[in-house]
Amino acid sequence: MIKTAIIGGSGYTGLELLRILALHDKATVVAVTSRRYAGKKVTEVFPSLTGHYDGLSFSDPSKVDYMDAELFFCCLPHGTSMQTVPALLKTGKKVIDLSADYRIKDPAVYEQWYQPHSSKELIKEAAYGLPEVFGRAAIKAASLIANPGCYPTGAALALAPLVKAGLVKTSSIIIDSKSGVSGAGRSASIATSYMEIAEGFKAYKVGEHRHTPEIDQTLSTLAGSEVSVTFTPHLLPIKRGILSTVYAELKDANADDTTTLLEAFKKNYEGEAFIRICPEGVLPNLSEVAGTNNCAIGLKVDKAKGRVVVISAIDNLVKGASGAAIQNMNIIYGLCETTGLISIPI
Amino acid sequence: MIKTAIIGGSGYTGLELLRILALHDKATVVAVTSRRYAGKKVTEVFPSLTGHYDGLSFSDPSKVDYMDAELFFCCLPHGTSMQTVPALLKTGKKVIDLSADYRIKDPAVYEQWYQPHSSKELIKEAAYGLPEVFGRAAIKAASLIANPGCYPTGAALALAPLVKAGLVKTSSIIIDSKSGVSGAGRSASIATSYMEIAEGFKAYKVGEHRHTPEIDQTLSTLAGSEVSVTFTPHLLPIKRGILSTVYAELKDANADDTTTLLEAFKKNYEGEAFIRICPEGVLPNLSEVAGTNNCAIGLKVDKAKGRVVVISAIDNLVKGASGAAIQNMNIIYGLCETTGLISIPI
Amino acid sequence: MIKTAIIGGSGYTGLELLRILALHDKATVVAVTSRRYAGKKVTEVFPSLTGHYDGLSFSDPSKVDYMDAELFFCCLPHGTSMQTVPALLKTGKKVIDLSADYRIKDPAVYEQWYQPHSSKELIKEAAYGLPEVFGRAAIKAASLIANPGCYPTGAALALAPLVKAGLVKTSSIIIDSKSGVSGAGRSASIATSYMEIAEGFKAYKVGEHRHTPEIDQTLSTLAGSEVSVTFTPHLLPIKRGILSTVYAELKDANADDTTTLLEAFKKNYEGEAFIRICPEGVLPNLSEVAGTNNCAIGLKVDKAKGRVVVISAIDNLVKGASGAAIQNMNIIYGLCETTGLISIPI
Amino acid sequence: MIKTAIIGGSGYTGLELLRILALHDKATVVAVTSRRYAGKKVTEVFPSLTGHYDGLSFSDPSKVDYMDAELFFCCLPHGTSMQTVPALLKTGKKVIDLSADYRIKDPAVYEQWYQPHSSKELIKEAAYGLPEVFGRAAIKAASLIANPGCYPTGAALALAPLVKAGLVKTSSIIIDSKSGVSGAGRSASIATSYMEIAEGFKAYKVGEHRHTPEIDQTLSTLAGSEVSVTFTPHLLPIKRGILSTVYAELKDANADDTTTLLEAFKKNYEGEAFIRICPEGVLPNLSEVAGTNNCAIGLKVDKAKGRVVVISAIDNLVKGASGAAIQNMNIIYGLCETTGLISIPI
Repeated sequence: MIKTAIIGGSGYTGLELLRILALHDKATVVAVTSRRYAGKKVTEVFPSLTGHYDGLSFSDPSKVDYMDAELFFCCLPHGTSMQTVPALLKTGKKVIDLSADYRIKDPAVYEQWYQPHSSKELIKEAAYGLPEVFGRAAIKAASLIANPGCYPTGAALALAPLVKAGLVKTSSIIIDSKSGVSGAGRSASIATSYMEIAEGFKAYKVGEHRHTPEIDQTLSTLAGSEVSVTFTPHLLPIKRGILSTVYAELKDANADDTTTLLEAFKKNYEGEAFIRICPEGVLPNLSEVAGTNNCAIGLKVDKAKGRVVVISAIDNLVKGASGAAIQNMNIIYGLCETTGLISIPI
Repeated sequence: MIKTAIIGGSGYTGLELLRILALHDKATVVAVTSRRYAGKKVTEVFPSLTGHYDGLSFSDPSKVDYMDAELFFCCLPHGTSMQTVPALLKTGKKVIDLSADYRIKDPAVYEQWYQPHSSKELIKEAAYGLPEVFGRAAIKAASLIANPGCYPTGAALALAPLVKAGLVKTSSIIIDSKSGVSGAGRSASIATSYMEIAEGFKAYKVGEHRHTPEIDQTLSTLAGSEVSVTFTPHLLPIKRGILSTVYAELKDANADDTTTLLEAFKKNYEGEAFIRICPEGVLPNLSEVAGTNNCAIGLKVDKAKGRVVVISAIDNLVKGASGAAIQNMNIIYGLCETTGLISIPI
Repeated sequence: MIKTAIIGGSGYTGLELLRILALHDKATVVAVTSRRYAGKKVTEVFPSLTGHYDGLSFSDPSKVDYMDAELFFCCLPHGTSMQTVPALLKTGKKVIDLSADYRIKDPAVYEQWYQPHSSKELIKEAAYGLPEVFGRAAIKAASLIANPGCYPTGAALALAPLVKAGLVKTSSIIIDSKSGVSGAGRSASIATSYMEIAEGFKAYKVGEHRHTPEIDQTLSTLAGSEVSVTFTPHLLPIKRGILSTVYAELKDANADDTTTLLEAFKKNYEGEAFIRICPEGVLPNLSEVAGTNNCAIGLKVDKAKGRVVVISAIDNLVKGASGAAIQNMNIIYGLCETTGLISIPI
Repeated sequence: MIKTAIIGGSGYTGLELLRILALHDKATVVAVTSRRYAGKKVTEVFPSLTGHYDGLSFSDPSKVDYMDAELFFCCLPHGTSMQTVPALLKTGKKVIDLSADYRIKDPAVYEQWYQPHSSKELIKEAAYGLPEVFGRAAIKAASLIANPGCYPTGAALALAPLVKAGLVKTSSIIIDSKSGVSGAGRSASIATSYMEIAEGFKAYKVGEHRHTPEIDQTLSTLAGSEVSVTFTPHLLPIKRGILSTVYAELKDANADDTTTLLEAFKKNYEGEAFIRICPEGVLPNLSEVAGTNNCAIGLKVDKAKGRVVVISAIDNLVKGASGAAIQNMNIIYGLCETTGLISIPI
């Protein structure tokens, strides 16, 4: 059994790691820290976990015994994560960091969108943990995994086959994303109260969401040239899921239609256990991926206008966060990639 | 135009008063206070009010000019209200207090369930503002109205015709109530977040909710003897509304059936503009009263078991709070009782 | 009092007309037809209307006495409407048709997207009832109003100021719309059941929704040249509302920024009672327009990419259907345009 | 591997069986029938199952090859089930029937609440499949299992420890239950549309729900005397779950308090894998059992009134239907009772 610890485990990504690892055959959670809940039983804070973790309490982060675990899931907010990760790595532990701190390769870009970075030297050692796009080799070799952001995951999976193959004009890319409320994190706030969210819907941070540079970085790497997208996030009155509706102009609208592009997607993602390409005429619903590590993708070409519309659906807490983290752990340890990650939405 | 002011107007009852008064022909809001939002435009905090109150900002409660308004709606929490109301009354103003501070006639009972009371002498001057049960005379005559609690309103309206007429065994009364989230107030809290509420349902404070003594007081007054109910509140994943399912044993199950009791309810509430008795075989849905000052009531007698089940539906923020407050204002000023209060749910 | 009748009044647009007209000072409903509910009391089918229309029952459409009403709201499905409207017009009555049958000026386009048209000669007599875009003159003069579709209303109001003033490249327009469930109409269907909708979200009819040619027609008229947009509708887990996120490339990204475009929108819609332009930095939420005839619009320019993102929010059943129909009635009869249409969302 | 077939598998209980059996180690689904979807791929009708059952299509019920399966889950409506089950039993197969047809031991009671019964002789052979209340012996021995109804499961689990031990006055029992929408089944209906359900709440079939005699039968068996409860079902705006709030008068209010009764419940359900007794002061939330085969139970004694309030929470589709069916299958085949049934709510 792989001994894991969760640093900052009282939020939704921590809960999600606990939920998935509870039924994981090859890994176990030996410690979970939380400043807020230190000393409280895990099942008292999260009654849905009753029957699992019955002996486990939240630890004070300052007291966690690093020696017990060999792999750390770091669920701290950006800025805080970079204060904790270097010490963990120094002791020879492996770290899967779910914050943004090691995702952006160019420290200047990170600092422009986030804040000063205190461990820039580690950025280049971090492997960006999106195996379906960048493969497994770097993940397997790294001690530090930068687990991708939720929006960037949905956007990258929708666009990678098109951008890698040079099928679209990258300057035309528009990503209209809609996320469930869990994306805002687990904290007391009127903005995410039932009263504000239910029967409402809105866009937010148009053109200024911090996930934009991460999306641009992934697409630029795939394109081999600078890509800069228009990205508009929206807040859905649902708990989980990100549906991204992606628009791009085709380079050759005569050559590519819905059928050929669906084939290209299937071929690109061949053998990927978590990617589901919808049949022609079918588009994914977020309810079909809720609670799973799957990404469902549908698409449609608008011949007359020379545009393709690609739609990807993920669970932001699973494929967009904790599920991907466990998938990365499975890769690191040479396990079957789906271990602990096979589930069917209710 | 009646000049009104709202003290503590940044919560849901304050917003609801603003919403209703915006379209009230005979009353206007000259000031609204809020510690949290002092200086902010009302429409900035509540965009749904855009186009109304465009000149109005929240005032610092310490600076509000009491001379401008003649009637004060006091939306402060219990305990805070009793620190503000006496001064308002001293200046000769009228006060409709939406807190619990002046509802309980026996200060000892208040202090047992809530906290020490600092203006006990005012309790007996306060008129309990439930006109459909206790009439209009006291309300018209009073300077201080204790606006009823939301659960007590739904419970009292469901039970008054039965208890007043002595048709049920009062020791058998069970009130199983289900409330929308707005009943918890407008404050940042994980417990009322969309994530906790949506697709969930639970009971809370079973046997210990503070509205219990208020319900007991109303029923005891009507019965002319001590009544003590079993009251179980639940939290519904909806924004507004309280549905109370009330159980009581009939004193004479041979005499009373669904038909006769429905007749008794109709007669009891004859001429009441806001009470709707459902036809036999029909039971109310909370969606039918949302946003209105109405109380819809249906009932069914279970002959074999000698029990009646009465179901009342109100909007907790309107008939259960701000709508009732405006109804009380209309009564005080001799206006048509429905002024500003006619609406149809969307 | 204007005597109106509603043809096909058992769906959501019919209910919405009944809801609004119940509180309209200058109009009354003398008849409402429904095949499904003929003979049933209106308040039995729609309990939320209890206290209004208590004497009114649904009429069999074959027996409705056309002579009683002077204005007809036709809420029939497309295809059925064109079989009913000509006879009504022949008797000299005025008709506001909420179907698609008289919206598309070019019969060939109508027939390509819908079905054969049986009264093409009436199409050119119909005034397209979007006063904020095309003015009041044609509406005032017409006997037949083609009430706009819900998506086309939201899209046109978001784009009119830009397209009319020639500020954007019309070939670049992408409209990503998200609609509440009521847009699907009131009919028994698994697809619109609570089980399918709640906690779900999806796109549908990508590139093939029938509202596309109506959007194209409006924009082409405003542009003075052929416009053909990319339009993607999505289904939101809410009851009401359409939020449209509109993308367009600016012709002159140096000249126009968020501030100047917001000014242009304000000027374009000056004096319009139902249009609200959000302040810079603020974007509309569907909950702020629910139940109202308002359209709230926010926008943001992405300088670097030379694109503007405009977001419009309407209630699809009010400004997108029945509210607009009553606004058009008010215009026809020379009433104040807001009569019966002032409301604040709960 | 146990070869199973699902008869009438296109509803929610069928989908739920498919969902659970997809990940069951010891059982497989060889056929699933549906009149409505005969010939269609299972994953086309239920996209959430994609990746499982990829070779399986719905069969026409008239053509299903009975020889392939050894155990049949019968998900037909009551009345239809009794026309199918006898033939299955005759071929020596085992049947777990999820309808009401074999639950009520007294055919006269069945016929009073449902309809004429065409295979009364089989009723006494059927084992009522509620192992936590009636043990495993009868289930293990039977060829036909009458799988309990959803409301009766929640009610029985909340009351069994009290009634069996004779702690409450059985004439005083009131069961106030609240169910999610899936309890109404998967069929096209305005009544279960998102528009009717969301932001609404109501009671229905008060005193006349067909699950009443089943509840009475269970409690009468446990009490050893006739028990007849007052049962009020309500419809919650959630997908899954039944929360039952049960009221009963204690025979000895001096002896029993919250602490002693919680102990009695723990002892009664000792060793039961799916029953969770909440700690004192804690009450269950439906969201904690969604998607699981668990029943969570909390309780509170109201000393002054001599009443106990017990609250049970189950997922109506799992512990209230398909999960219980698989639990019964596990018992029949001597498997570990939790096989395929361990899950954590998302």
